[in-house]
Amino acid sequence: MIGTKEQYLERVKGYKPKAFVGGERIKDVLTDPNTKTIVNTVAKTYELACDPKFERIMTAVSPFTGNRISRLNHIAGSIEDLEMRLELTRLMTQSTGTCCGRCGGCTALNVLAATTYAMKEDGIGEYYGRFVDYLKFVHQHDLSCHAATTSPKGDRSKSPLEQDPDLYLRVVEKRKDGIVLRGAKAHQTSAIAVDEMIVYPRNFAKGEEAYAVACAVPNGAEGITYFLQFNSDDAERRASDDIFTLGNPLYGGRQTMLVIYEDVFIPWERVFMCGEVKYTALCGRAARRAHIYNEGPCKAGFGDLILGASKFLAESNGLDKTPHIIEDFAKIIAANETTYASALTAAYKGSEMPAGSGVFFADERFGVLSKLNANEGFYEVVKAAADVAGGLVVSMPSEKELKDPERRALLLKYLKGRADIPTEERMRMFKFLNHFVASPHAAQAWIGGGAPYHLRMALYEGTDLEKKKELARTIAFGCE
Amino acid sequence: MIGTKEQYLERVKGYKPKAFVGGERIKDVLTDPNTKTIVNTVAKTYELACDPKFERIMTAVSPFTGNRISRLNHIAGSIEDLEMRLELTRLMTQSTGTCCGRCGGCTALNVLAATTYAMKEDGIGEYYGRFVDYLKFVHQHDLSCHAATTSPKGDRSKSPLEQDPDLYLRVVEKRKDGIVLRGAKAHQTSAIAVDEMIVYPRNFAKGEEAYAVACAVPNGAEGITYFLQFNSDDAERRASDDIFTLGNPLYGGRQTMLVIYEDVFIPWERVFMCGEVKYTALCGRAARRAHIYNEGPCKAGFGDLILGASKFLAESNGLDKTPHIIEDFAKIIAANETTYASALTAAYKGSEMPAGSGVFFADERFGVLSKLNANEGFYEVVKAAADVAGGLVVSMPSEKELKDPERRALLLKYLKGRADIPTEERMRMFKFLNHFVASPHAAQAWIGGGAPYHLRMALYEGTDLEKKKELARTIAFGCE
Amino acid sequence: MIGTKEQYLERVKGYKPKAFVGGERIKDVLTDPNTKTIVNTVAKTYELACDPKFERIMTAVSPFTGNRISRLNHIAGSIEDLEMRLELTRLMTQSTGTCCGRCGGCTALNVLAATTYAMKEDGIGEYYGRFVDYLKFVHQHDLSCHAATTSPKGDRSKSPLEQDPDLYLRVVEKRKDGIVLRGAKAHQTSAIAVDEMIVYPRNFAKGEEAYAVACAVPNGAEGITYFLQFNSDDAERRASDDIFTLGNPLYGGRQTMLVIYEDVFIPWERVFMCGEVKYTALCGRAARRAHIYNEGPCKAGFGDLILGASKFLAESNGLDKTPHIIEDFAKIIAANETTYASALTAAYKGSEMPAGSGVFFADERFGVLSKLNANEGFYEVVKAAADVAGGLVVSMPSEKELKDPERRALLLKYLKGRADIPTEERMRMFKFLNHFVASPHAAQAWIGGGAPYHLRMALYEGTDLEKKKELARTIAFGCE
Amino acid sequence: MIGTKEQYLERVKGYKPKAFVGGERIKDVLTDPNTKTIVNTVAKTYELACDPKFERIMTAVSPFTGNRISRLNHIAGSIEDLEMRLELTRLMTQSTGTCCGRCGGCTALNVLAATTYAMKEDGIGEYYGRFVDYLKFVHQHDLSCHAATTSPKGDRSKSPLEQDPDLYLRVVEKRKDGIVLRGAKAHQTSAIAVDEMIVYPRNFAKGEEAYAVACAVPNGAEGITYFLQFNSDDAERRASDDIFTLGNPLYGGRQTMLVIYEDVFIPWERVFMCGEVKYTALCGRAARRAHIYNEGPCKAGFGDLILGASKFLAESNGLDKTPHIIEDFAKIIAANETTYASALTAAYKGSEMPAGSGVFFADERFGVLSKLNANEGFYEVVKAAADVAGGLVVSMPSEKELKDPERRALLLKYLKGRADIPTEERMRMFKFLNHFVASPHAAQAWIGGGAPYHLRMALYEGTDLEKKKELARTIAFGCE
Repeated sequence: MIGTKEQYLERVKGYKPKAFVGGERIKDVLTDPNTKTIVNTVAKTYELACDPKFERIMTAVSPFTGNRISRLNHIAGSIEDLEMRLELTRLMTQSTGTCCGRCGGCTALNVLAATTYAMKEDGIGEYYGRFVDYLKFVHQHDLSCHAATTSPKGDRSKSPLEQDPDLYLRVVEKRKDGIVLRGAKAHQTSAIAVDEMIVYPRNFAKGEEAYAVACAVPNGAEGITYFLQFNSDDAERRASDDIFTLGNPLYGGRQTMLVIYEDVFIPWERVFMCGEVKYTALCGRAARRAHIYNEGPCKAGFGDLILGASKFLAESNGLDKTPHIIEDFAKIIAANETTYASALTAAYKGSEMPAGSGVFFADERFGVLSKLNANEGFYEVVKAAADVAGGLVVSMPSEKELKDPERRALLLKYLKGRADIPTEERMRMFKFLNHFVASPHAAQAWIGGGAPYHLRMALYEGTDLEKKKELARTIAFGCE
Repeated sequence: MIGTKEQYLERVKGYKPKAFVGGERIKDVLTDPNTKTIVNTVAKTYELACDPKFERIMTAVSPFTGNRISRLNHIAGSIEDLEMRLELTRLMTQSTGTCCGRCGGCTALNVLAATTYAMKEDGIGEYYGRFVDYLKFVHQHDLSCHAATTSPKGDRSKSPLEQDPDLYLRVVEKRKDGIVLRGAKAHQTSAIAVDEMIVYPRNFAKGEEAYAVACAVPNGAEGITYFLQFNSDDAERRASDDIFTLGNPLYGGRQTMLVIYEDVFIPWERVFMCGEVKYTALCGRAARRAHIYNEGPCKAGFGDLILGASKFLAESNGLDKTPHIIEDFAKIIAANETTYASALTAAYKGSEMPAGSGVFFADERFGVLSKLNANEGFYEVVKAAADVAGGLVVSMPSEKELKDPERRALLLKYLKGRADIPTEERMRMFKFLNHFVASPHAAQAWIGGGAPYHLRMALYEGTDLEKKKELARTIAFGCE
Repeated sequence: MIGTKEQYLERVKGYKPKAFVGGERIKDVLTDPNTKTIVNTVAKTYELACDPKFERIMTAVSPFTGNRISRLNHIAGSIEDLEMRLELTRLMTQSTGTCCGRCGGCTALNVLAATTYAMKEDGIGEYYGRFVDYLKFVHQHDLSCHAATTSPKGDRSKSPLEQDPDLYLRVVEKRKDGIVLRGAKAHQTSAIAVDEMIVYPRNFAKGEEAYAVACAVPNGAEGITYFLQFNSDDAERRASDDIFTLGNPLYGGRQTMLVIYEDVFIPWERVFMCGEVKYTALCGRAARRAHIYNEGPCKAGFGDLILGASKFLAESNGLDKTPHIIEDFAKIIAANETTYASALTAAYKGSEMPAGSGVFFADERFGVLSKLNANEGFYEVVKAAADVAGGLVVSMPSEKELKDPERRALLLKYLKGRADIPTEERMRMFKFLNHFVASPHAAQAWIGGGAPYHLRMALYEGTDLEKKKELARTIAFGCE
Repeated sequence: MIGTKEQYLERVKGYKPKAFVGGERIKDVLTDPNTKTIVNTVAKTYELACDPKFERIMTAVSPFTGNRISRLNHIAGSIEDLEMRLELTRLMTQSTGTCCGRCGGCTALNVLAATTYAMKEDGIGEYYGRFVDYLKFVHQHDLSCHAATTSPKGDRSKSPLEQDPDLYLRVVEKRKDGIVLRGAKAHQTSAIAVDEMIVYPRNFAKGEEAYAVACAVPNGAEGITYFLQFNSDDAERRASDDIFTLGNPLYGGRQTMLVIYEDVFIPWERVFMCGEVKYTALCGRAARRAHIYNEGPCKAGFGDLILGASKFLAESNGLDKTPHIIEDFAKIIAANETTYASALTAAYKGSEMPAGSGVFFADERFGVLSKLNANEGFYEVVKAAADVAGGLVVSMPSEKELKDPERRALLLKYLKGRADIPTEERMRMFKFLNHFVASPHAAQAWIGGGAPYHLRMALYEGTDLEKKKELARTIAFGCE
């Protein structure tokens, strides 16, 4: 039940999604430069899951079948599951330097396990069984899943019904055999290279039933179009004839896409909610609890790489023993581990939701805190690393120059650092660090996973201020 | 084996320490205004330990005797013990708004359990048994203990032997029946109101054997003089004829003291190290691991009180629904819980030290992080609370004015806030919050428990940078 | 026309204000411990103004009379005046370590010069001439003035008329010979020790005419009651029999008071606005422009003292050459000078308002920025100084202990630092620094002079975002 | 004497520098995509100088010839010159969104004016006259100049002579007719598109005479090789067939290069220092004073663009009236204007150096502060802008997709924001903002212009701590 990298690659080979990047149609997801990195990263999840060294982190035993499965498709059933999931997240970012692509899918499965259970408990019976069947199918083939949850939203001062109704993904037709979806999902990391996209809704109100839809959509389903982001990193890779001159050769940066649904048909057996707006708040809450606490370890994993590269470059600059450089290292460590600690606490303070469902979610407050700490922390990491590395982290010439012997001689002479460290390695590491500190990474970390404002409000709303007031009163009034 | 508040008060009654505060000799620790608050706080530790509601937090079962004892005298034997200790710390600061006074003593007992065990394993057998006997004695009477660990140090660019040798506490004479101590310990919180002071050394070098001394000193031992700090809070309390006009009526602020040892005799059965400099590094490390992770929850408890008072005052100002005030609440919560999360992680990542000793210590890195986060965080808390409360948090007249009917009428009229909140309560809460945000609290939080620089260095030294470098290299060089 | 310290003291001797502090009636402003510090500070403004060394900073030539007068009563008529005023502010805080007490009064005079001029230009002629006459009177006697501008406000979610109407100072009766005032002014720094309180309104709306009142009130006018703040610093001083053991012996901390007006009569010749709500917005704007840019230099002056004390203590700790201590110094300097630079820019970008009035005001945006930078900056200063000084900054015993020879010997031995620095001086400097870093100072700096939120909004509202948008569009669309 | 854009372009046409970017030889600086942006930006300096609207900012009257010249070649002779230079800097970054390329050259001319004057005063007469002649030549043709000052440095724990001596630019031969240079200059912004590179040394010691060299090198001199940086922005532009899909279409990002000198001959009339190590400290000091205070306004200009784009996107998201978004605007404004204010203060506190030279330099402390505030501030700007803009600032598809009608229809539908704002403009503005917040900009701002540590040390060393200590003592000891 633990799929191999090869099986995954074989499946991807069969998908023919309609997708565009940089103005061009993607011909083959497996080989296109901008999607190959995603494939490599998802493949890495399979590779590590098959490595016995990482069994505890990367796999789990499914309570639904008793089989060992990928933790990325696991419904968390314990505090330990919550803890191992964040270890998985950090391991993956340490191992690839980018988004593993399946993290949101794992969240989505957990969200739907809880939500369909809640509906079942309330007498809306059809979805739970259907979801469990679907889950077993996912487990059996160890499919990679992605979460389709953020609609484009258009004008945010308006509700879905006050503007083009398609700016939020919605059901435009219910048919005997299934439903028809129209709209889009935005900022969809890695969606093009997974097997399944799991759609679920968040926080809709009465009257907005058409938006209360959860379902599973296979990669490249009829009617779907993918538009990949096109940051300069993406453009650089697209134009490059040698990936080993790029910042993160194999795995690249986080690759997101806009996924447009033009009347996509979904058969009923893949539909897990359809109109039950009442439960979209639970989806929202479950999604935040399942997901947000992973954002910290994800950035801590990037931070580990940045720390390592900074150490290398400090040595190579001859400055690794300098007090202010050591202070920079300490700052990076503090930022990484603060966000990690908040996440681990979210796991340890996790609980079952809804009661009786057997589905465990991390604590919302500490999860949110992990992300908020990652937001500020990652910028501190970036600043400290830039400080350590110095100017070449942005001003280094292309390593392609090294292919010409004369230019190579000049650059190896003039970009030299400490005598015993090969200048090629030094150049490589500058480009690697450049990829993290002079790139979209920090902005992605800041914005991805929920707007900071809403996270701060979750922190506020999740805290019992009345209880704190009572504590203050007791002491202020000198009650013994 | 769980002592009562009354037993404790009875014992304190018997102590006659030679102590000075604000230029005056303290006549009675139980009634002196500047020591009564300490007595109240230590008494609170007994009171809560006797409350069945807090049994899990406040008490533990001693592995040495199988009896239930105060957790403040417990040798941590598990992760759960480490976790409960920090819950105890936060509960105590939430309940008193000040230092519980026994926290360092708990640390000291754990440090000596580990260190004497290590000496025993190395064949230095006399201390461990002696220490266990002493521990049983402490448990039997549920004595309150304090840690005596920081020497005045004088000129920090000089070692102990390069200046007045007494600036570090030392053994000046070894006698047949015991040792004679000379020197001082500085910043000793609450020492005057505990039963026992536990002396231990940290990080001495060869040649500094006289300083490698650990022992237990009874309160008010012959030759000891206490000089209490004299901040303006202390002066205010000393001068006040009505404690209910003070910021924290019963428990006051943290009260530290300089404790001077003028040739104090300690019998051998109370001596747990004498000259074994090699083990002072272990003392240092054990002390940091046992102690520092409590600093975060301690400040988070203060932060809870500040949050509660801020909420009260925001309501009373009619501003509790204002967006920027809610952002202030979110900031306070974030600061409190970030430091708490780092501490909890330190507990969960704790481990036995030395192997086989059965003594558990929190993880040093996350412990240190908890303190560093508390340092910055507490100032954020203070700023946000001042922002919420507004000017009266510093400019309020004395509540003593209320005793005069005419002045009372004027103040109740002009200091009024929201109509349904009694102005007396509003005044009370302003004074309470003043005590936390316009006082030595923040500076104490910043400085206490170890200089930030050394904590940052511990974070740096405790991190395996080589491993991070390897992670970076693997990805930078595109190794699959 | 430049008054002497002696003349000022002579005048104060004559005032008999009804005032309370700490529950007691103040008998004599000149000798009461809590008001003597204010008198000392105001006296210092006269002393420095008479010192030829400070002529350019402390004095100016009045355009109204051609005489040299105190700059604290000067109507700014040029950029240089604006610049010299902030130099005066920094000089005063450097020289006293507390609020000079006359700064708000200077603001008030400038506000009224502009506002009465604007009314005159609009045909409301009586006030301007009256104000100029009053101003000449102030200049002639070099009276010290204070600004009475902040009403208590009560429930801030309600307007003045929606609650007890007296919570904002108002005119309750207009008589043939003058007006009658009722209400209060809060957070009034030093008011009790100046000659005149200058009342002016800010931002009232139609229907709130009773609140649109500006006038001059003599110290101790019939019907006025002062309630002094009572922080622990105030309590400490009140109780102390030796001011030389206090943090700032002569000048103390900022002393504010609640000033209550119970039907106070003001003759028409002292009334400068009465009902013209339309002009209260100009008062508000002029007040901010005249005043807020002084807040930065004020805190920079405190910061200079803190920097000096930190340097002393670093030397005395033997740590003044340590890299992380030097970084602390750099942080303090950066914070001090950043707020100063914002203020100086506000001065340089100042302008006349209203056109033709000849009254110069600092730029609002840079003024506001100076205060916002002072807010954050002062806490950075406090943290860095606490870091430099170490634990004794909060845990030092009272210097009163030194009066006893035996205790003196003990303390001088055990509180010793670097051998060549007298321990008494070291103790003195610890107490001095304590007064700044473990006291209400930082909270006062944070809150005083306008709530940070309103300052941020002023920054936003004062910036032409449309123009910035146009700049962005020009480049984004590649317009040459 | 004010050159035109056309004259500049004509000159550049004639230069044939040996230069490489991304592994390729640059064929024509005027048309190569990675150098055309630099040419456009330098051309803009001429265009604006010819615009009468900007005469005061962009031009000045030369004291050497009495002619009106470009301010970028002007030797500052007054405070107003210092002020106008920073206005020029902000105007240029507001107008191009990138480095103007001539700023360092202006610094270099001022450095050499002061240094050659100082040598002349000390009796080393040949350089000053030679420099003035050269300056007149520059003025006559209004040449664009660049500063060549930072050597690669190699292992920073070693001095120039302890490693490959060429890692610092040096004189390898003195000939009758001139000198021969070998080595390199790193991080050279825009060097390839200016007329002249002005070499000057900083802070060399006795024994390092070969490094004490100042001279003027014409663009593309024999023996010079340029290696351009190759960030992903550069790669994107190189690969793009439509610059109007790039973030900053015409001017691009800051383009730096490594400039290698392989035995370059410089005739004596272009040599302004050769071996006089004693004066290299003055060069260093003059360079910092002339240059660093421009770094703040430079980033404030970027910040203005970011603010404008953020405002546009907030409107387009329907969120421009939301409180937390307005707070973000306020943060951006505060950061921009704080750094600007520090710089303006540096200008106002400027002074002549050396005395009698007539050359004015900004104050070093406030200049350094401007840069330090820009460092932290720019990251705050970037964070706030990302917060305002939301996810599309990193996840937007390429605008090239719009060229296909079907894809255009889909994207215009699904990327729509507020109904009345064209979606194409919205996409354009997202890409524009992406260029500033998810790019090397922030890291360049952080690192460029001097390592933060050295700036902090300049702040420390430039402050008279003894004087501050005296202020503290005066108050602490209660001296009247």
